Amino acid sequence: MLQSKLFYKTNKNKTAGVDSVSHDLLTRAGYVDQLMSGVYSFLPLGFLVLKKIENIIRKNMQSVGGQELLLPVLQPKENWIKTNRWDTLDILFKVKSSGDKEYAMGPTHEEIITPLAKKMVFSYRDLPFSVFQIQTKFRDELRAKSGILRTREFLMKDLYSFHSTQADFEVYYEKLAKVYANIYKEFGIGKITYRTMASGGSFSKYSDEFQTLTEAGEDIIFICKKCSFAVNKEIKVENPACPKCQNADFEEKKSIEVGNIFPLGTGFSKPFDLKFTDKDATEKPVIMGCYGIGLSRVLGTIVEASHDDKGIVWPKSVAPFLVHLIQIEQNPKVAKATKKLYLDLQKQNIEVLYDDRQKNPGEKFAESDLIGIPYRVVVSERTLAVNSVEVKERSKASVKLVKIKDLTKLF
Amino acid sequence: MLQSKLFYKTNKNKTAGVDSVSHDLLTRAGYVDQLMSGVYSFLPLGFLVLKKIENIIRKNMQSVGGQELLLPVLQPKENWIKTNRWDTLDILFKVKSSGDKEYAMGPTHEEIITPLAKKMVFSYRDLPFSVFQIQTKFRDELRAKSGILRTREFLMKDLYSFHSTQADFEVYYEKLAKVYANIYKEFGIGKITYRTMASGGSFSKYSDEFQTLTEAGEDIIFICKKCSFAVNKEIKVENPACPKCQNADFEEKKSIEVGNIFPLGTGFSKPFDLKFTDKDATEKPVIMGCYGIGLSRVLGTIVEASHDDKGIVWPKSVAPFLVHLIQIEQNPKVAKATKKLYLDLQKQNIEVLYDDRQKNPGEKFAESDLIGIPYRVVVSERTLAVNSVEVKERSKASVKLVKIKDLTKLF
Repeated sequence: MLQSKLFYKTNKNKTAGVDSVSHDLLTRAGYVDQLMSGVYSFLPLGFLVLKKIENIIRKNMQSVGGQELLLPVLQPKENWIKTNRWDTLDILFKVKSSGDKEYAMGPTHEEIITPLAKKMVFSYRDLPFSVFQIQTKFRDELRAKSGILRTREFLMKDLYSFHSTQADFEVYYEKLAKVYANIYKEFGIGKITYRTMASGGSFSKYSDEFQTLTEAGEDIIFICKKCSFAVNKEIKVENPACPKCQNADFEEKKSIEVGNIFPLGTGFSKPFDLKFTDKDATEKPVIMGCYGIGLSRVLGTIVEASHDDKGIVWPKSVAPFLVHLIQIEQNPKVAKATKKLYLDLQKQNIEVLYDDRQKNPGEKFAESDLIGIPYRVVVSERTLAVNSVEVKERSKASVKLVKIKDLTKLF
Repeated sequence: MLQSKLFYKTNKNKTAGVDSVSHDLLTRAGYVDQLMSGVYSFLPLGFLVLKKIENIIRKNMQSVGGQELLLPVLQPKENWIKTNRWDTLDILFKVKSSGDKEYAMGPTHEEIITPLAKKMVFSYRDLPFSVFQIQTKFRDELRAKSGILRTREFLMKDLYSFHSTQADFEVYYEKLAKVYANIYKEFGIGKITYRTMASGGSFSKYSDEFQTLTEAGEDIIFICKKCSFAVNKEIKVENPACPKCQNADFEEKKSIEVGNIFPLGTGFSKPFDLKFTDKDATEKPVIMGCYGIGLSRVLGTIVEASHDDKGIVWPKSVAPFLVHLIQIEQNPKVAKATKKLYLDLQKQNIEVLYDDRQKNPGEKFAESDLIGIPYRVVVSERTLAVNSVEVKERSKASVKLVKIKDLTKLF
């Protein structure tokens, strides 16, 4: 991509009225644009990061047999009445059609996937299975805040699993917990993300959240100093000792929930009469689980975890481009060599943002640090004199000269 | 994909209460599920086709410099007041937040992209550019009908282009018209899709629709018998002679609009004050165009155009799988050979649906015809005896024996 053509605008100055680093940096580096409170546009740079996150999640969901589908945003009121959530879920956006029909705007999709599964499931032989989608959700948050960390409209992956026995469910649930840990590792936030014991709400005693340590978080978790088991504050209050090792010495940390996995038991299969005929010829309700990850929140969390005072420092796995190619000086020789390198890198399927603009080097470097692409590759008359380019990794301080022919070995 | 695991259910019998072939076939072949009037879930098979359509559109939009982004569904009322469409656009879904703020649910995104562009565009040097998204749109259709051909919630690609001169806009507009023709060709409906002169509404005298001939369509177009130029009925009424060759002999056809390209002139840049400083230092309003394709409608239209009395006949470019591998007989030798072939094909990146179920051949073949995958590959004891498989193309009547080692040469 030529930077002169990119649909974005950076801002050197701190964004006014922001309450998180990610909101500030993503806004002024040109990744997102706030349309109104809690509602954001993803500009081309932000969209590229979203797609990277989406692809990592998709690959991992497919690895546990998840089949992708797409469920509607508009949902019938009747389904929400059936689960008693139409009047009780305060974040539910409701919309009325011209024919005076009322719909919910899906904040989650149990009310849709359960009756849909009922059309496919008859016998124990039809179980287990899991389906997922990556789709826009709506929640009427009273307090939308922290940029894209808590919004009214956001991208979410939600997977639903269906089982004939509790034992089968539990095996799958633990498998998903492992896959989740792997996903956060791929996002570059594995070391600061904790599987955290949390309340199970009205469906089960406990659920598991995945909490990433960050000052921008709204949650408090307690990490056992002996065994590193983490519990949400709500659990700690009920249970002052570590549920795993009984130690009572915890570290208290601020964190943000970047995912959760949730035993639903028969909480949805019963109201929707989703049952199956078991081997013993009796009818039983299907046992369900749900497993969510908010993509836009993850994007913000990665920035909270990975930045410095100059800007974002993207992990390679989710960076919008791998290489930020910067041309210094406008003389034809440098321009020609840089353009050739740009085309060569693209031929090798290396994603490159090419700063072809007429700006001074200081301005280009400052913007490059703000945008946060992993490798900055600078071409100038001086570097070309020794058939080289100057390479700086965004996450490191050192700069080195690399022969052009050896450049791609770095990546 | 193993068919025994696929989340779907077929139905031999014609769907009750449907008013189009695509609605009937897509429902009973397990591609879509109707949640309520005008609102559909895309099941895994349908999702795979949607992704193929999406990727074809994306590649073509990138080929004309389109940068992908993602704009919100929730849109501020003020923006719609500004363009005078809050009270006049009858298909606008309106939703109220708990804080009593009113939002539109985006049926289109001029009200968002225009003020966003204002943040990026200052000089003639910032023009031209184009951005697009593939995203869910909402329209409160009084008459949702024909399955996924006219729905209240649907996937759409919308591209917006921005220009400093009318001449530059016109060049880009014609370029897009060519790219659109190419897209429909890739979808396999190129020969029955006509660029059709239509009204330009309040923004310009004319626009162009892309109309696919089908009995399920709601539009009427007139095709000049002499030069094949097509005009929408509304234009024909105003203008009884062919606008291109002046011939007055037309063929009248039913068709469905599968895309449109639309000169917006300064109809949106003026209310949002989107202007630029031109070379002569004067300020001028930006000239805009918009270019839409409805993905879910295209999916339905392809089925309308490509089916027979047994089911869907997918063009290869958008088929959910390329090969439907069917195992006949459950003996271990056949099962082993079929499984090996399944894995070998996957290794070669050939998309295969493997019917590993214990059903009789007649039932498997009928379902295969209904689902409509381009190549049916049957493995039985008889075919294995000559190291072969039986291959039938869905679009042809003939069946042939092909050596297993030569199979992939067919695709």
